[in-house]
Amino acid sequence: MKLAEFDIWMRRAADAVETALQAWVPADAPAGLGLAMRYGVLDGGKRVRPLLVLAAAQAVHGAPSAAMRAACAVELIHAYSLVHDDMPCMDNDVLRRGKPTVHVQFGEAQAMLAGDALQALAFEVLTPDDDPAMPAPLQARLCSLLARSAGHAGMAGGQAIDLASVGRQLDEQALSDMHRRKTGALLRASVLMGAACGTTNPREWQSLAEYGDAIGLAFQVVDDILDVTQASATLGKTAGKDIDNNKPTYVTVLGLDAAHAHAEALRRAAHAALDGSGMADTEQLRELADRVVARES
Amino acid sequence: MKLAEFDIWMRRAADAVETALQAWVPADAPAGLGLAMRYGVLDGGKRVRPLLVLAAAQAVHGAPSAAMRAACAVELIHAYSLVHDDMPCMDNDVLRRGKPTVHVQFGEAQAMLAGDALQALAFEVLTPDDDPAMPAPLQARLCSLLARSAGHAGMAGGQAIDLASVGRQLDEQALSDMHRRKTGALLRASVLMGAACGTTNPREWQSLAEYGDAIGLAFQVVDDILDVTQASATLGKTAGKDIDNNKPTYVTVLGLDAAHAHAEALRRAAHAALDGSGMADTEQLRELADRVVARES
Repeated sequence: MKLAEFDIWMRRAADAVETALQAWVPADAPAGLGLAMRYGVLDGGKRVRPLLVLAAAQAVHGAPSAAMRAACAVELIHAYSLVHDDMPCMDNDVLRRGKPTVHVQFGEAQAMLAGDALQALAFEVLTPDDDPAMPAPLQARLCSLLARSAGHAGMAGGQAIDLASVGRQLDEQALSDMHRRKTGALLRASVLMGAACGTTNPREWQSLAEYGDAIGLAFQVVDDILDVTQASATLGKTAGKDIDNNKPTYVTVLGLDAAHAHAEALRRAAHAALDGSGMADTEQLRELADRVVARES
Repeated sequence: MKLAEFDIWMRRAADAVETALQAWVPADAPAGLGLAMRYGVLDGGKRVRPLLVLAAAQAVHGAPSAAMRAACAVELIHAYSLVHDDMPCMDNDVLRRGKPTVHVQFGEAQAMLAGDALQALAFEVLTPDDDPAMPAPLQARLCSLLARSAGHAGMAGGQAIDLASVGRQLDEQALSDMHRRKTGALLRASVLMGAACGTTNPREWQSLAEYGDAIGLAFQVVDDILDVTQASATLGKTAGKDIDNNKPTYVTVLGLDAAHAHAEALRRAAHAALDGSGMADTEQLRELADRVVARES
C-alpha cells in the first residue's frame, strides 16, 4: 500500500468515527451531562483504537457498520478512562488533547458522572435493537471482549497497579504486566473486536491476538519515550509527567536506546503475527503498527 | 403467600445472591483493587434490586442461573453508583451500610477505580462463555437493558439532575422525572431483566414494566420519608442529609402526609399492574412491593 493511499484511508476512517460518535454521544442528556460527555470524547485524539478495530474488521471482511459500533464503543471506554484518570484524585491533570480537562471545564462531580455514563454508553452502542449487521451473538461477543478488557483484569486493574507503583522501582516484567493491562488490554481488544465482526477462524483469531498484544505494548513503550522526548505542545498533554510523578516507565527501566529497540522489536513482532495469518487484507494493520511506533505525538 | 414463607424465600434469595457475588467479585484483582471492589459490594445492603430480578424471573419461570447473573449484574451497577456517589466531589459521605465508605477506607483514587471496575464487571457477569442458561440473545438483551438504565438516559442522567437541583425548588413533575432516572430506571430494569430471563409475551412484559415503574418511584418516595423520620443508626447511612444538602425531596415538595399517601398509591399501582398480567406466580413481586413501602430502613 502506498503511503498516500493509507493516509486517505486513515483520514476517512477517523472522520467516519467522528461522525458516528457525534450521533451517538447525546447532546441532550440532562443537566449538562451530555455536554460534558461530548467534550470528553468528540473532536480530539488520534483514534488509534477505532482505527485498529476498523483495520482488523477489514482484514476479516467484517460488516462495516458492526465494526463502526465496535470502534466507537472502544473509543468511549478509552475516553471515559481519560476523564477519570485526569481527575485530581488520580493524575490531577489540567490539559488533554490541547484543551482543559473535563473536570476543569465542568467540575469534578460532572466529570465523574460523564465518565460513568460514557462507560455505559459503550455497551449501549454495542446492543442496538434494530441493526441487522449486529446479530445477538455478535453483540454478546463484543460486550464480553470490551467488558473484560476494561475491567479489573484489564484497564482498571492496570491503573490500580499504576497507582501503587508511584515512587517504586519495577523490573521490566512488572512494568510490562502493568502496561499489558493498563493500555495493552484495550488495544488488544480493539483488534479482537474488529476480528469478531468477521471471523471465527482460530488461526486468524490467534494471529490477530498476537498482533494486538505486540501493538498494545509497543504503544505504551512509545508513549513512555515521547513523555521524555517531546514538549507538551506537541503531545497536547502535559509532557514529563511520568518523571515528575516519579512513575516507573520503559525509559527509566530500560534506558532510552533500549526502549527504542524494544518498540522496534514489537513492531516486527506485529508484522510477523500477520505474516502467519493467511489473511490477505492486512495492509492497514501493518501500516498502523508502523505508525504507532514512528509517531511523534 | 404467608409472611413466614416469604421471609424464608427472601432470606434464601439474598443468601444466594451473596454467595454468587462472593464468587464473581475477584479477591485477586491487582494492587488492592479487588479488596476495594469487594468492600463496596459484599456483606451489605438490602439487595432490593436482585430480589426484584429473582422475583420477576420466578413470575415468568425464567432459568434461575440466568436470573442470578442478572441479579448480580444489577447489584454491581448499584454498588458502583454508591461508591462514586459517596465520594467527596459528590455527596462526600463517610458512612454507608453502617461502615466507612470505600474512599474513606481505601482512598479516593482506588474508590473511583473500584466503581469503574464494578461497572465493567456487571457486563462481564452478563456475558459468560460457558453458561447454557445464557444463550447469546439473552446476554445481548440483558446488556442492553442494563446499559440503558445505568447511563445518561437513566441513573447517571438522574444524578446529573440531582447535582444541578441542589438549593433549587422543583415541582412534583421535575422531582419525579429526576427520580425516575436516578433510582427508578435501575429498579425498573431489575424487573425487566428478570422478565427477559423467561418471557417475550408483550402483555406480561407490559405488566412488569408498569410494576417496575411504580415500585421504582415508590422506593424513592419512601427513601425521602425515611431520610427525615429515621436516625442514621437505623438507616446505616447518614440521615437527614437531603435537608442538610438543601436537596428537594418528596417530603419537602409534597409534605410528609402526602408523601405517605403517594407511596401507598404507588404500592397499589404495582399490585394493579400484576392483576392485569395473566401471570400466576406473582406473590413475591406483590410482597416485595408491600415491603418496599412498609420498610423502616
